[in-house]
Amino acid sequence: MIVLDRPIKFEEVDAAGIVFFARFVNYAHEAMEHFFAGIEGGYAGLIMNKRVGFPAVHVEVSFASPVRYGDTLRIETTTRKVGTRSAVFHYRMRDAKTGALAADFKHTVVISDLVAMRSCDMPADVRALLLAHLEADPPTPQ
Amino acid sequence: MIVLDRPIKFEEVDAAGIVFFARFVNYAHEAMEHFFAGIEGGYAGLIMNKRVGFPAVHVEVSFASPVRYGDTLRIETTTRKVGTRSAVFHYRMRDAKTGALAADFKHTVVISDLVAMRSCDMPADVRALLLAHLEADPPTPQ
Amino acid sequence: MIVLDRPIKFEEVDAAGIVFFARFVNYAHEAMEHFFAGIEGGYAGLIMNKRVGFPAVHVEVSFASPVRYGDTLRIETTTRKVGTRSAVFHYRMRDAKTGALAADFKHTVVISDLVAMRSCDMPADVRALLLAHLEADPPTPQ
Amino acid sequence: MIVLDRPIKFEEVDAAGIVFFARFVNYAHEAMEHFFAGIEGGYAGLIMNKRVGFPAVHVEVSFASPVRYGDTLRIETTTRKVGTRSAVFHYRMRDAKTGALAADFKHTVVISDLVAMRSCDMPADVRALLLAHLEADPPTPQ
Repeated sequence: MIVLDRPIKFEEVDAAGIVFFARFVNYAHEAMEHFFAGIEGGYAGLIMNKRVGFPAVHVEVSFASPVRYGDTLRIETTTRKVGTRSAVFHYRMRDAKTGALAADFKHTVVISDLVAMRSCDMPADVRALLLAHLEADPPTPQ
Repeated sequence: MIVLDRPIKFEEVDAAGIVFFARFVNYAHEAMEHFFAGIEGGYAGLIMNKRVGFPAVHVEVSFASPVRYGDTLRIETTTRKVGTRSAVFHYRMRDAKTGALAADFKHTVVISDLVAMRSCDMPADVRALLLAHLEADPPTPQ
Repeated sequence: MIVLDRPIKFEEVDAAGIVFFARFVNYAHEAMEHFFAGIEGGYAGLIMNKRVGFPAVHVEVSFASPVRYGDTLRIETTTRKVGTRSAVFHYRMRDAKTGALAADFKHTVVISDLVAMRSCDMPADVRALLLAHLEADPPTPQ
Repeated sequence: MIVLDRPIKFEEVDAAGIVFFARFVNYAHEAMEHFFAGIEGGYAGLIMNKRVGFPAVHVEVSFASPVRYGDTLRIETTTRKVGTRSAVFHYRMRDAKTGALAADFKHTVVISDLVAMRSCDMPADVRALLLAHLEADPPTPQ
């Protein structure tokens, strides 16, 4: 599990006064970028140098409680499945103060050659990192 | 079915050169705002005057093919389920030129009193509109 | 003058309940994309096919009155200066209902070859369009 | 001077492959939020508890060189003018690696009561902080 604390920004709420639901997808991607901080060059290195990326093929989010400006999300990132060309990330997003779950987010990606825009095997260091954070099987209940 | 044609904007792509996956949630919300254009005051009237909103409790998206700047999405909006306090929207997002599916998006909302921030019965005109666009049962395969 | 009516979207406000000031830059760019709708292929054609773009070198915005969800901006676009490799766009953003000025926006761009990422002469059809909407000299007071 | 290092995010580029110019306004606001980290409750406390905010009345940005995914901006924040109800922030945004200027940003705000939505005197701790980071007069050339 890799943890990212992410304060909500001023402009991330909507006209209902709570964080707009699309923002959680941005948070998930930020948590994924943070997840890869240990890889040489980070996620930016994969994208810009190796031209390898992780386009999403599936996303599933359950929203448990609203988040507001002034709150900080604690995002716990694990992997649920690791294949040779795909992986499932799992983000538990909690209120950093209370620990209450705000959103539970599953994110399936296909490792892709961004030049040819087709799937490819994942680099060895990526695979090792994904496997190092694989959830126990069966997944522990939340 | 209510249809919205939505050209991709210059700033909606990411460093991989395709539309960033969080953007599809914005598109879904725009399609929902458009869906309510026939209600007096539209979605903005619900939010700003009646202080009734539709926070998401669940979102599920399958991404079928990447979208780029210069493309236009055709978003077909229907409802899959209509309760007294909740509903499921269904957006089929297609390339407007080819008809190819780009994303299939299900969006479960709970009708909420934004002042008390708790669920409430949906206004009658909202319910009538949601029922008017309910998918046949069983849902037709895509 | 080319006019774009642009309804404010649900997620464009901030925690102070008014449209976040960065959004006006997005509106300006949308108005510029709309300005080029008459060119073959539009702005997207310039970017994606000709690989010519208009990076900003200077932006100056005066904010006159706050805008909220439910409002529509009427954006009046003209040009203030047209050179061989640069131009100044001028956007007057008004409340579509009252005509009251919300923001006055000047936007200096340098026509650029996006592959070499350096300035280049503007295409003839672009120049003709920019000149067709050049403000009278001296600029009429607002 | 208060400094914020801000890595560019994956989704902050545009179809020309460089950071979209509206994003710099977001960066400026993030630098301002960071500037107020030393105030009790931070900027979020001002907005959410005291209901005092800093709507922009003027923004002026010069863009010196493009920024890309993988770059980090170093944002140096000072104040250029401090009144009783207004202030001018100055952000110098540099490439963190080379020190090269990417954007020079001036941001005039009016301290405002967000309930009445009109100008008000600034809180004493805010004023002290703004004065503590006032640029020498005359402003040092960049």
